[in-house]
Amino acid sequence: MKKKTTAAMRMKKDKEVIAKLQKLGKEITTAIKKGKSPTISIPVRTLSNIEFDEKHMKLRLGSSISKRSFMNVAHARKFMQTVLIASWVCNELVKEGITTSLRDMYYAIKRTIPGTKENTVEEQSESDPIVVDLETALDVLREELHLNADVRGRVVGNVVIKDRGDTVDWSKLGSGGWSIPSNVENIEFKKVDADYILLIEKNAAFERLHEDKFWKTHNCILMTSQGQAARGVRRLANRLSTEHKIPLIVFTDGDAYGWYIYSVIKWGSMNLAHVSEKLGTPNAKFVGLTMTDIERYDLEKYTIKAKDVDIKRAKELMNYPWFQAPEWQKEIKLMIKKGYKAELEALSSKGLRFITNTYLPEKIENKEFLP
Amino acid sequence: MKKKTTAAMRMKKDKEVIAKLQKLGKEITTAIKKGKSPTISIPVRTLSNIEFDEKHMKLRLGSSISKRSFMNVAHARKFMQTVLIASWVCNELVKEGITTSLRDMYYAIKRTIPGTKENTVEEQSESDPIVVDLETALDVLREELHLNADVRGRVVGNVVIKDRGDTVDWSKLGSGGWSIPSNVENIEFKKVDADYILLIEKNAAFERLHEDKFWKTHNCILMTSQGQAARGVRRLANRLSTEHKIPLIVFTDGDAYGWYIYSVIKWGSMNLAHVSEKLGTPNAKFVGLTMTDIERYDLEKYTIKAKDVDIKRAKELMNYPWFQAPEWQKEIKLMIKKGYKAELEALSSKGLRFITNTYLPEKIENKEFLP
Repeated sequence: MKKKTTAAMRMKKDKEVIAKLQKLGKEITTAIKKGKSPTISIPVRTLSNIEFDEKHMKLRLGSSISKRSFMNVAHARKFMQTVLIASWVCNELVKEGITTSLRDMYYAIKRTIPGTKENTVEEQSESDPIVVDLETALDVLREELHLNADVRGRVVGNVVIKDRGDTVDWSKLGSGGWSIPSNVENIEFKKVDADYILLIEKNAAFERLHEDKFWKTHNCILMTSQGQAARGVRRLANRLSTEHKIPLIVFTDGDAYGWYIYSVIKWGSMNLAHVSEKLGTPNAKFVGLTMTDIERYDLEKYTIKAKDVDIKRAKELMNYPWFQAPEWQKEIKLMIKKGYKAELEALSSKGLRFITNTYLPEKIENKEFLP
Repeated sequence: MKKKTTAAMRMKKDKEVIAKLQKLGKEITTAIKKGKSPTISIPVRTLSNIEFDEKHMKLRLGSSISKRSFMNVAHARKFMQTVLIASWVCNELVKEGITTSLRDMYYAIKRTIPGTKENTVEEQSESDPIVVDLETALDVLREELHLNADVRGRVVGNVVIKDRGDTVDWSKLGSGGWSIPSNVENIEFKKVDADYILLIEKNAAFERLHEDKFWKTHNCILMTSQGQAARGVRRLANRLSTEHKIPLIVFTDGDAYGWYIYSVIKWGSMNLAHVSEKLGTPNAKFVGLTMTDIERYDLEKYTIKAKDVDIKRAKELMNYPWFQAPEWQKEIKLMIKKGYKAELEALSSKGLRFITNTYLPEKIENKEFLP
């Protein structure tokens, strides 16, 4: 099968999105013409409708649907905003081939409705949830609606991509690496040569490994999320891992926050349960830091006393259905018992190149992962 | 004159830094051999010793020097830490050609001093200031000591660099752009073709301009700091602007925080006054947002009410010697009088491409800058 070009892929996706937005519009106008109150169906996103899909190992929305109706006083304003944003996204963004941020969208659609003293939106907190409504109702990603999320994260490795007409070789970007954009939908992978992807929470560890050319000697893709993984990072990891069948290995601090970052990369998050399919990577594995590492590598002196909030968070993780694997239960219990946590940087106490030369090769070669 | 290669430049710098560190060590051993108490001279960094150099338009340290003495009980611990870090930086980082973060350094040097129960350092807050002491005492950048700062910011434009053996063309990096590393000391500029550098506070505006290929049509370098400019961004702007005589134009939110970001890029900051020479770019100009823009472009509807802290911050700016230009005094007074502020994104209310097609070309062409 001939590979589609980036431009062709983008055009096809845009056409699909426009068709979905127009279908929504058509349903509304049809109802109006028939003298009925127009409604929009939106899957419910409250906790009660979020389920953990054990088979596919992903958080997802259940089947509850809410109806947003124009002729209901409690719904009318939100209905107006939904239609406004849907048509603006369709005509100003997708058709024009422009992407923008949620903040810019808020300013762009804010105006006083003619003949009234009412503004279309007062705060960004009004327009943001409408975008999630549209994502859910139309089953598209925010990025496919041409709306960008936060940007964070960098990547290097033996990969060549095509993006906006440029051919970018991730193995030839000096110390900087490629800045992961918020929208990676239209990236075309021209060459992917890697045994695994190593996704690292902390930039400092990424820099260490990059400087040591770890990605070259171990034939892997190095990625850093620089904290909680932005949507671009999660989607890029998902695309590389699923489209190219490359295992994804995650490396975070040894604390509840780091483990949560891992869980979002693997299973998805509750507030984005509707897009877990595209953002989560269920085959991801966790290489460290584990509580067991701390004893094994004699790092106790370099741990940090856990605060109440750390213990509370750990207890929450322990109750999540997706953390029920015995290995994780053991880890979390150990953390609560020991009352400490450890950062990636603690490994530097064994020497700056300990992660490059010992810790990671040892654990990855022996497949010492948590599920 | 033949241009030095990156590797040669780096080696020369490393040699200079090693020489400075060894000189420091030698002075200490010489004093000890003579039976004297060894001391280290460190320029004072408190407010009383920070001056604004009107001639060079930069914040800098005054001439006060403090002596850190080994035989003074109040100094002994800090003296030990200074010597420990200086020798570790010299032997483990510079000589080995390794860079690392302040956090990793803290872990790497932390240990119990043999025969005592005392640790070399207890918290990172002990080791961080010692690095600044060394920067100041030796007149080197932290990056020249192989210590990395935070990483943030991206760049695109008609520039080709050589970095770690790779040739990177900033005009061919797709939507992502080049991720600005913390250490840009060893970057070699192979080709720089730009009429000016546009440094933008917000990533969203950067993305808009990048998508519109603004850097291509206006022959400029586009850079975003993604908030307060990290050292890498400031140093990169400084190097491009001074080494290649390219004007630097800064574009931030219209509020005291945005103006402060500008002031740090231009004049340096008080807590890094010792490195303003290398991080500040006194020729920088400010294109917006200004309070005058708000009236001129009819943006009042899209302003945000200033909080008490915004007004307080604005009043502080008004008193800084480097904000005494009448244009700035007028701006700041107007902000306090109006009691509002505006974000870059407010310009999107005029259409998403307003900044690309109208605002920036108009202001830049007519040189409507604040000094």
